[in-house]
Amino acid sequence: MELAPVLAGLEARDPAAVGRAISLVENGRAGFEELLSAIHHRLGRARRIGITGPPGAGKSTLTEQLVRRYRALGLPVAVVAVDPTSPFTGGALLGDRLRMERVALDPGVFIRSMATRGSLGGLATATREVCDVLDAAGFGRILIETVGVGQSELDVARTADSTVVVLVPESGDAIQTLKAGIMEIADLFVVNKADRPGADRLRQDLEVTLGIRAGHAFRHVPAHHGARGLSPSRGADQAPAGWTPRVLATVASTGEGVDTLVTLLDTHHAWLEGSGELTARRRRRLVERTREVLTRAMARWVSHDAAVEQLLQDRLAAIEAGRASPYEVAAEAIELLRPGSRV
Amino acid sequence: MELAPVLAGLEARDPAAVGRAISLVENGRAGFEELLSAIHHRLGRARRIGITGPPGAGKSTLTEQLVRRYRALGLPVAVVAVDPTSPFTGGALLGDRLRMERVALDPGVFIRSMATRGSLGGLATATREVCDVLDAAGFGRILIETVGVGQSELDVARTADSTVVVLVPESGDAIQTLKAGIMEIADLFVVNKADRPGADRLRQDLEVTLGIRAGHAFRHVPAHHGARGLSPSRGADQAPAGWTPRVLATVASTGEGVDTLVTLLDTHHAWLEGSGELTARRRRRLVERTREVLTRAMARWVSHDAAVEQLLQDRLAAIEAGRASPYEVAAEAIELLRPGSRV
Repeated sequence: MELAPVLAGLEARDPAAVGRAISLVENGRAGFEELLSAIHHRLGRARRIGITGPPGAGKSTLTEQLVRRYRALGLPVAVVAVDPTSPFTGGALLGDRLRMERVALDPGVFIRSMATRGSLGGLATATREVCDVLDAAGFGRILIETVGVGQSELDVARTADSTVVVLVPESGDAIQTLKAGIMEIADLFVVNKADRPGADRLRQDLEVTLGIRAGHAFRHVPAHHGARGLSPSRGADQAPAGWTPRVLATVASTGEGVDTLVTLLDTHHAWLEGSGELTARRRRRLVERTREVLTRAMARWVSHDAAVEQLLQDRLAAIEAGRASPYEVAAEAIELLRPGSRV
Repeated sequence: MELAPVLAGLEARDPAAVGRAISLVENGRAGFEELLSAIHHRLGRARRIGITGPPGAGKSTLTEQLVRRYRALGLPVAVVAVDPTSPFTGGALLGDRLRMERVALDPGVFIRSMATRGSLGGLATATREVCDVLDAAGFGRILIETVGVGQSELDVARTADSTVVVLVPESGDAIQTLKAGIMEIADLFVVNKADRPGADRLRQDLEVTLGIRAGHAFRHVPAHHGARGLSPSRGADQAPAGWTPRVLATVASTGEGVDTLVTLLDTHHAWLEGSGELTARRRRRLVERTREVLTRAMARWVSHDAAVEQLLQDRLAAIEAGRASPYEVAAEAIELLRPGSRV
């Protein structure tokens, strides 16, 4: 693939070019790292917003509402929907996607579902790289929607500048089990379907847990959570030490509360910029990205190295017979690959 | 950690020693690969059985019933429960685990939940290694229970000798979307909660889809599915070309149908052995394992190499300023690591 026309197409935000560039990156086809390398210098203009929560919380509807608001402000918006593609729930997710297509007729909107990619590199890295393409194409807001399963919330948090956790009144019972994984990554909590019974209670419970409402006077923050940890509730005479997550109510199906969400996302972004946290996070992510790319390149190197292949072939019989273990043979392969070993 | 006492403890199937060995392996602590290397020669005695399906299908209850049957046959049994630990559904899974503990008082039963591990190596590899420890400790059956989310079914299939997919009558609607990911990995389909309406219909639908009941005369198998693909329905004059997945009904809560499941698991294992497929699969897995271990060792090498660290430090400012990309710097790091580069 020739790079120049793709770059020109991205510059012009041509939907077909954007789609082709994303496919290239998502599938890791020849030239994808050259493309990502070539766009690197123009990244950082987009705000990346993660939206996560349990199945049925209304994430897609809320995402669609955000898309409408940002479009009304004249901003090009991209949506990256990250589904861990469960074959058991495929139907429901498909329904969400179809509904979303109502906003997709607008050329200022780009919607893409990410499927799980093979082991080489993984979904989180691929998602970050797809967001880079969208950033380079000038989408001012990138909404990364992911269903709350497994490790994916944490990975979203490290991809996004702002992370929104969407809950519903029915999630109330789960709030005790939420704490461990979710509390640390949420910049904003949305209590969606807030016209249902239990919404006020959930909101209050969240605020107590966050230490922004009386109930617990103070919430201890484990030191290792660092800048992403919750800040303790503060007395009026203390300077703000960090970001205190906000809790808000929405009814995504009617649009109620979505304007407030947009405002709070702006507030959070202003805090990120003003506090230096945006720069710090992006620096950390660049280091992480370089390590990820390096690890991926190492894996590619291993799988294409003729001497390693020969070794694996030669030693397979010994591994099978129990005379050598995979661990011993891997160590032998590492020795083959070490600097100076073949000179 | 000294290796000899751990190995002796595994040999004696001492629960505390087994638990410690698994923790060592699961957390990738110092010495874990030495342990795995030392037990490699005595692996292969256990039958590894994967049990997967959507949430609420009754996997844990069915697993518990299988444990009881195997215990009645005098076989030591281990259960490895792989939860993608969603913070949103933590409660329900915990309930399952607690229920399972009714059988856990038996010293011939070992139950372990696997949490998601960090990026280095990943959950699938860690699960395989934990199963190795259990195999070495003489557990004749290892039941690997995993909720059907994301990539995990496919990973279970590659870990287990036999894979059981558990569905419930309510799954009927989902059968069309099941096909892609699930049909290829299932050796046995269990229609659980078969006392509910719709069970017969689901069973028939599965059999039609599998080509073992009239409806579709013939089911085409994409060539790349290879030995794990479904065999087409056969005329009486054709020799069996592979394994045709069986469909059976159970009511796990009462134990109905579980004896049949045990019998069919034996039938599948006999087919695996007789056809040479067991040997072929285990050979493929040993090659895969060696590659996984090698990739993990490479990642460790990268993260501990002083010259690479220095390069990343030196080039960070350039990456931040957009003068260099993570991809260029990763390529520079690979050059540093290549054989002969430092001589």
